[in-house]
Amino acid sequence: MPSMTDSYTSRILVDGHGGDGAPYIVIDALAQILSKKSNRVKFGICGQEDVLLPALKEKGLEEIVSIVPAADVIDMCDPPAVALRRKKQSSIHIGARAVRDGEWDAMVSAGNTGALMAISKLILKTLPGIDRPAAASMIPAEGGSTFFLDIGANVDCSSEHLVQFAVMGSSYLQAAEGIESPRVGLLNIGSEDIKGTDVIKVAAARLRESNLNFIGNIEGTDIFTDKVDVVVCDGFVGNVALKSMEGVAKLMLTQIKQELTSTILAKAGALLAGSALRRVKDALHPSEHNGAPFLGLNGIVVKSHGSADAYAYACAIDVAIREVEADLIGRTLESMNQMAEAE
Amino acid sequence: MPSMTDSYTSRILVDGHGGDGAPYIVIDALAQILSKKSNRVKFGICGQEDVLLPALKEKGLEEIVSIVPAADVIDMCDPPAVALRRKKQSSIHIGARAVRDGEWDAMVSAGNTGALMAISKLILKTLPGIDRPAAASMIPAEGGSTFFLDIGANVDCSSEHLVQFAVMGSSYLQAAEGIESPRVGLLNIGSEDIKGTDVIKVAAARLRESNLNFIGNIEGTDIFTDKVDVVVCDGFVGNVALKSMEGVAKLMLTQIKQELTSTILAKAGALLAGSALRRVKDALHPSEHNGAPFLGLNGIVVKSHGSADAYAYACAIDVAIREVEADLIGRTLESMNQMAEAE
Repeated sequence: MPSMTDSYTSRILVDGHGGDGAPYIVIDALAQILSKKSNRVKFGICGQEDVLLPALKEKGLEEIVSIVPAADVIDMCDPPAVALRRKKQSSIHIGARAVRDGEWDAMVSAGNTGALMAISKLILKTLPGIDRPAAASMIPAEGGSTFFLDIGANVDCSSEHLVQFAVMGSSYLQAAEGIESPRVGLLNIGSEDIKGTDVIKVAAARLRESNLNFIGNIEGTDIFTDKVDVVVCDGFVGNVALKSMEGVAKLMLTQIKQELTSTILAKAGALLAGSALRRVKDALHPSEHNGAPFLGLNGIVVKSHGSADAYAYACAIDVAIREVEADLIGRTLESMNQMAEAE
Repeated sequence: MPSMTDSYTSRILVDGHGGDGAPYIVIDALAQILSKKSNRVKFGICGQEDVLLPALKEKGLEEIVSIVPAADVIDMCDPPAVALRRKKQSSIHIGARAVRDGEWDAMVSAGNTGALMAISKLILKTLPGIDRPAAASMIPAEGGSTFFLDIGANVDCSSEHLVQFAVMGSSYLQAAEGIESPRVGLLNIGSEDIKGTDVIKVAAARLRESNLNFIGNIEGTDIFTDKVDVVVCDGFVGNVALKSMEGVAKLMLTQIKQELTSTILAKAGALLAGSALRRVKDALHPSEHNGAPFLGLNGIVVKSHGSADAYAYACAIDVAIREVEADLIGRTLESMNQMAEAE
């Protein structure tokens, strides 16, 4: 649709399958965004036409959102390698090819994370100078949020990979959040230079010499402070840390609930303080933070949480729109070039 | 003091230096325990006599608690390697030698963690079949707590080290908590066998064949559930996970405080629900959980948190007493032998 391209600031293709409430949640999310940004963004939905068309019609969107047909559906429990090889007509495969071929600017999916990463990597490839894509997440922190990567795409990382993640994370915050010089920290077991593995020490030395705003080693507790904007670690550590945080938050909320219903006095207090306590809960699992960018790919891919509601899914779509409109790929390439020149 | 030994079930030496409130907090903790278990446990305190004697006299304990003199004091900021080599007459050095020589059954210290581990390892050595000592922590979880190791002593671990940590953790819960067959989980980024690094995969295969109650891979969120009793990981991952948990908990408590003072209604609710909310806070930083055992050493060493109050410090002493009385070292050796025989 070359004639239409000029009038849109971005063309976003969403995955019509995958996630708990597809395709209805996905289409509700599109409806929410279209009501606000109808003239700016062109939307498509990828998947089985016989499923998607009736759902679009229900919302009156069949003329506005174009269907990109895909025959196969990847299940949440499909092993990524199997999904990659056996379901080549899946919505994720077709969507990634459409982004690669420039038909769409970005893909958003709530589907199988491993399959989404593997297929995106195979079809879109990584940007020049970047060995591996990474998955990132925005984490609530004092005074805002912290951008945390890699959260599980790469279990073993070299120093060079960590340096590349730092560039990717920094470029993301510049592009998507407008932070001019994001503070980059390397996740370690202490702030001193002598701490950590050899991989970390070499990465820290390289980052100190780089043109990034590297603030040094940071510890797990620092992630939630206003000390740092981007926290870099390997995907094993990142995944364990992220899930440990989720576990603590869940345990605390359960305990608060139990304690607040334990006595009549506490119950009365909970009633009065109810909306304050709900705000704490929302602040920890913020829908606004949905949308985990896959970085380092030669194309924009954003993962929505599988259990996202329409509002949260719309936030993931918004991440993709911001990445496109701020030219994340161009900025990342530029940063990689500056790093190479500085050496 | 061979003639006195028979009448005591354990002889515990505490470090008179190190930690925020030494020696007063330490001596207050001794006074608390002596008021309950005066006939069972023999206590000593190690450090500078001119500092310790007046403090003991203040509490009327100078006849009951014997001073083990040590000239040097290790500071919290001394690099472990420097403390190890330059302060050979420190309370930690003298204490570890006294445990090695059988004069005391265990040492408890709130001092410099790195120095305590390095000196304990040098002087006490590891148990036969164990390559490296590990540091462990009790973490609050649904329905009780989870024993988590290594929390920072070993940044790089082989599969064999992880297997040894599993034996050490399992033996600890049998000895100190009386759990007959502790459920052991390996911290990973997914529960499937194909997940994780090669080090993890080999460790999992070995644990499956062992006589431990190995329940398989667990994820970060599982630490806080009632699925597992011992969680094993390398010290880098363990340290980052532990500090991330602390960070989230702190952030949540700050947010709750802010929200509960944000409106008059919320303030009133907070007043009514005050004691319930305090219980949540206490449940997350439980003083009862103070006392991080150093495991795998040929001698019992327990680390108290540096900011422990007297009650929390007494809990760390209690961990040491339980380890001695349940013969942790003997049990660990037995488990190591059973592992070797099973192969």
